[in-house]
Amino acid sequence: MKINGDDYRSIWAGENDAFAGVIDQTLLPHKFTPIELRSLQDAETAIRDMWVRGAPLIGATAAYGVALEMRRDPSDESLQNAYDTLHVTRPTAINLKWALDAMRALLAPLPPLERAAAAWAKAARICDQDVAANKALGAHGLKIIEAIAARKPAGEPINILTHCNAGWLATVDWGTATSPIYQAHNKGLNVHVWVDETRPRNQGASLTAWELGQHGVPHTLIVDNAGGHLMQHGMVDICIVGTDRTTANGDVCNKIGTYLKALAAHDNQVPFYVALPSSTIDWSVNDGLNEIPIEERAGEEVSWISGATETGETTKVLICPATTPVSNFAFDVTPARYVTGLITERGVCEASNQGLKALFPEGGEK
Amino acid sequence: MKINGDDYRSIWAGENDAFAGVIDQTLLPHKFTPIELRSLQDAETAIRDMWVRGAPLIGATAAYGVALEMRRDPSDESLQNAYDTLHVTRPTAINLKWALDAMRALLAPLPPLERAAAAWAKAARICDQDVAANKALGAHGLKIIEAIAARKPAGEPINILTHCNAGWLATVDWGTATSPIYQAHNKGLNVHVWVDETRPRNQGASLTAWELGQHGVPHTLIVDNAGGHLMQHGMVDICIVGTDRTTANGDVCNKIGTYLKALAAHDNQVPFYVALPSSTIDWSVNDGLNEIPIEERAGEEVSWISGATETGETTKVLICPATTPVSNFAFDVTPARYVTGLITERGVCEASNQGLKALFPEGGEK
Repeated sequence: MKINGDDYRSIWAGENDAFAGVIDQTLLPHKFTPIELRSLQDAETAIRDMWVRGAPLIGATAAYGVALEMRRDPSDESLQNAYDTLHVTRPTAINLKWALDAMRALLAPLPPLERAAAAWAKAARICDQDVAANKALGAHGLKIIEAIAARKPAGEPINILTHCNAGWLATVDWGTATSPIYQAHNKGLNVHVWVDETRPRNQGASLTAWELGQHGVPHTLIVDNAGGHLMQHGMVDICIVGTDRTTANGDVCNKIGTYLKALAAHDNQVPFYVALPSSTIDWSVNDGLNEIPIEERAGEEVSWISGATETGETTKVLICPATTPVSNFAFDVTPARYVTGLITERGVCEASNQGLKALFPEGGEK
Repeated sequence: MKINGDDYRSIWAGENDAFAGVIDQTLLPHKFTPIELRSLQDAETAIRDMWVRGAPLIGATAAYGVALEMRRDPSDESLQNAYDTLHVTRPTAINLKWALDAMRALLAPLPPLERAAAAWAKAARICDQDVAANKALGAHGLKIIEAIAARKPAGEPINILTHCNAGWLATVDWGTATSPIYQAHNKGLNVHVWVDETRPRNQGASLTAWELGQHGVPHTLIVDNAGGHLMQHGMVDICIVGTDRTTANGDVCNKIGTYLKALAAHDNQVPFYVALPSSTIDWSVNDGLNEIPIEERAGEEVSWISGATETGETTKVLICPATTPVSNFAFDVTPARYVTGLITERGVCEASNQGLKALFPEGGEK
């Protein structure tokens, strides 16, 4: 997508594979700073310190981390060391392990001298596959937006509400929830996005608002509290969100607060869609509410808020008494009954085991 | 309620009625600063600059503002000037006009020399009436909490979720939503409060958390996104919120986001109560969703967040790109069907015209 008018991916190989380029997302939205990863250690830092975030982008960065290390030392020990080093950076990110497994499976059987070239090519393929999946699911989601547009009076915007950042910054390109939006916008549809700020980490305010703005998609930032009111008053035509994990029955585990928006959508007959590459489907889990453990994070993420001061420095401020106890659940589960449909790279399906199995008959098989 | 172990009201008359004392609530939770209002202008500033907020407290402050002016100059012109000056400070606050009307109705017929003493006595009565109403509704709400406690295993806390600050700082004492909570706590019940931070102005984080902490009520701060997850997992026994306006049919207009919590409560069979003095009932309005205009406030309230830095200074930080468009609706309407009951000073009733009329048969009569 566009940044300052130029096309970007969230990760890219430098000329002659000299480095892997990423954006330091911790500095967004206030500073756009591309960074060149030139070693395994750079990649490790990028993931652990969250310069890159979002499951697909973490996986891609790990792949390039292995590739960087293979050029320095393509030995078996080095390959295993790269795997282990990167694996512990964000232990719960599913795509991280998936990408590392894919790299090791490809590289381990090869003679060491062939590993570096193969690794760089594989990392590029992992990125291209992510882009292709997101582009494909976006094309399916685009049809839903076009159908809504066809029912609206000409000239009226299609109002889309999204939560958190399931944008291109979290993937390699297009994003998941944002992919139908970017494709609709690129095609000339009059889309407008309500961006939930997404407390406590404000990924909506700092990342989604930034990337939509850079690409030129009309949008408005709102507090997480506002979506229900907007839906009551006909100001939302469709909700599209991402997911961190989707169960075999279509329950959706996503950023905390997603469930509340799904309830409001249901109460106001607003379609509520979840966009996902099939890699986020966990066929081993059925009941999302009872089977998915919800991560509890540090209370400081709630009580201290980061931002830029009027003079442009980044700082954080305390919004409650210093002694206030804080609880910080990172995700919630939206039961499948509140999900209108799942937008995948193979098409749109009902949020149910039947719906998912129709698109992914191989699902759950080992 | 308690501050640093001492009993306080949010407004009080100084010795020999030398001044009206208030707390500069704009400095909370980081600084507790009592202020002595010694003139009409002081009262005007206190209301306009939001040192005091909350409809009942605004009304009480206006009453003392008139009383202060009557001691300086008890003439008819002065009385009218005090009325006009205070009336425009917060034009939408219903209790402000109500208190000013009550003061003028009492004072205008009196000889000027009797006005000052009468004004100070009336302002004190307005405060005492507010305290009595909140204490009474709290006693009715207490019974609901006691009934929940009776059904829970001994030793388990009664978990109460509240939104925004309907606390004693918004009234003269006890608060509305907090009154049953304080009474339960004072009686030794094991209550624990989930405090919604309440974006965008964070009244939950800065005021409710502070006042509960000062009084010693166990509580935990959460983001507004978290309440649904807590209710799904049985971690909320009851929601109690306040209201800015209640319609004759029992619809509740309250701080933005209240509706989302009511939906989650409904979806998880958690009782959802609204505590209100009957002065907030607007008998002229039936359909809250279609008849109550919702105030839109400045976008800066969303994009800039105030707090204390690590060195203790108060500052604000920008959480989104400087150019991001922002929308800021201040309230939403919770339809009566999602409200389990209304807790009033005369008892608890169904959120319906029938329910309200049974307790307030005089309602709607001019």
